Amino acid sequence: MRAVCVIGLGLIGGSVLRAATAAGRPGWAATASEQDATAARAEGHAVEDSVPAALRRAESEDALVVVATPLTAVREVLRQVAWHSPAAWLTDVVSVKDPVHDEVRRLLPEARYAGGHPMAGVASSGWTASTAEMFSGASWAVTLEEDTRSEAWREAAALALDCGARVVPTSAAEHDAATARISHLPHVLAAVLAAVGADGGPLAMSLAAGSFRDATRVMGSDPELVRAMTEGNREALLDAADDALGRLGAARGSLASTGSLKSTVDAGHAARGMLEELRGASRERTTVPLDSRHTLRRLRELGDRGGRVVELTADSAVAEVPASEAG
Amino acid sequence: MRAVCVIGLGLIGGSVLRAATAAGRPGWAATASEQDATAARAEGHAVEDSVPAALRRAESEDALVVVATPLTAVREVLRQVAWHSPAAWLTDVVSVKDPVHDEVRRLLPEARYAGGHPMAGVASSGWTASTAEMFSGASWAVTLEEDTRSEAWREAAALALDCGARVVPTSAAEHDAATARISHLPHVLAAVLAAVGADGGPLAMSLAAGSFRDATRVMGSDPELVRAMTEGNREALLDAADDALGRLGAARGSLASTGSLKSTVDAGHAARGMLEELRGASRERTTVPLDSRHTLRRLRELGDRGGRVVELTADSAVAEVPASEAG
Repeated sequence: MRAVCVIGLGLIGGSVLRAATAAGRPGWAATASEQDATAARAEGHAVEDSVPAALRRAESEDALVVVATPLTAVREVLRQVAWHSPAAWLTDVVSVKDPVHDEVRRLLPEARYAGGHPMAGVASSGWTASTAEMFSGASWAVTLEEDTRSEAWREAAALALDCGARVVPTSAAEHDAATARISHLPHVLAAVLAAVGADGGPLAMSLAAGSFRDATRVMGSDPELVRAMTEGNREALLDAADDALGRLGAARGSLASTGSLKSTVDAGHAARGMLEELRGASRERTTVPLDSRHTLRRLRELGDRGGRVVELTADSAVAEVPASEAG
Repeated sequence: MRAVCVIGLGLIGGSVLRAATAAGRPGWAATASEQDATAARAEGHAVEDSVPAALRRAESEDALVVVATPLTAVREVLRQVAWHSPAAWLTDVVSVKDPVHDEVRRLLPEARYAGGHPMAGVASSGWTASTAEMFSGASWAVTLEEDTRSEAWREAAALALDCGARVVPTSAAEHDAATARISHLPHVLAAVLAAVGADGGPLAMSLAAGSFRDATRVMGSDPELVRAMTEGNREALLDAADDALGRLGAARGSLASTGSLKSTVDAGHAARGMLEELRGASRERTTVPLDSRHTLRRLRELGDRGGRVVELTADSAVAEVPASEAG
């Protein structure tokens, strides 16, 4: 099993190091946080003294480098990778993919890179909140571009599987458009809702029950991390915000003019039903060869249909696809 | 302990009957649903054959009548109360208060009425989803208007306390404005978010993680009940929706022009902090006499400050107020 070199030991990076080593991989890390480094070493994990030291070790042991810093620190880490290991096996766990891809192309044209994004997390942050089980059963996007080498995609996907996740193959642009809708817009709406609720004063807060607490829970997260994530996906989030403004405006207009929220509520109920249906659907297995010239197209189509890779064999990816969508 | 006569045996009405009888009150019900009636009787609860029969028994046993139907059925129930028990002890558990108050004033000027709204629920509906513990620790608004008699308020508050809830004293208009922000707007935003997410197709649904599922959970509820609740609070919900449109539009504008969501995220984080602070605050006890000419004003002020009544003595209400707000 290929060793992992994790740069950044926050909630996600820490969980990757824990999960990958728990799965039997050799692994070490580097972090700018003395606190996280000390805590990780106290639990017996290998933390190098500097990012260059960790990367030199990655170069000599042919490890997979995992960039697990906030988006704002990615460029500097990639510069260091370019210096110490320009053809590295490389992936990342940053929540937006197009900007990372662009930086990798520019700074590391020789790297064997595929981008990654595990769809898991909790409101707390830092090493102390990380767990080896963080990704168990979760979706983990691994991106495929025209210039992605299939062996690089395979390495990133193998890490996700070793961490207990299922791999959603997609392009960086499609990933960013989808996560704007299901991850970044929810954070913006939660911020809006929390503020509108608090404007109701202590009376509103003392009446607030489960629906309000659930809907604003993500606002308990570190505001800097929420900003880095949402602002980093600006273009796609603008599209999603425009859709939300359109739908909310239509709801407001209908309520004002006719007193009805039928279209809004029915659409929301049907959409939630789609989510539950997809989760509950029986799944069929399908296999995609990893070295044909159709691999890119077939894997992306698989992701578009809600399919997830659950296993890698010597020459192919085994996926589960919702039964009604299989074939 | 005063007997209760519950009209409607859905999730909330059923839970009131269970909780009130578990607390030792005599209690019976009536419901238009044969299914709910049969299920309740099978568990040993008294269900009269008709609403008039239940109300005649309430009149003869001087019971507290609890209207627990959807808003759309309230008028017809009140007409029957007016016929069979025009001076009844009366409360309700409908999620909007001004429209119910207006109907009671019009149809039942002699009734000893105070409106109620327990802030609890689950996505399921009907008797089978009801429990005796539904209101344990929850807030339960009990309304006070200029024409509310203090003995009527006391009866409605006593029922809430017997059901394990804490009583938030407020006016119907303030209740409706607050719940538009913390209950009805969350449903509308959940509907909008679910639809925008589903527009991302199966890829977006398969990437959706906890934040999306939490934020759209309430859209699993019966659409008719969601509509009855949100549409029934039209004016206040329009105000809340306008605030949300304003804040979302400002976020969109800031992201487009400067790339920053700082104001939005900071405001949301601070608002969420207020919710958690209020919940975690140490609380001081204070006592409000129930028969002074200042009772109405003092109880409403208590509710405005986030205070909740936890006990009734012979002549007063004992309340807990967040410590920083006490005095």
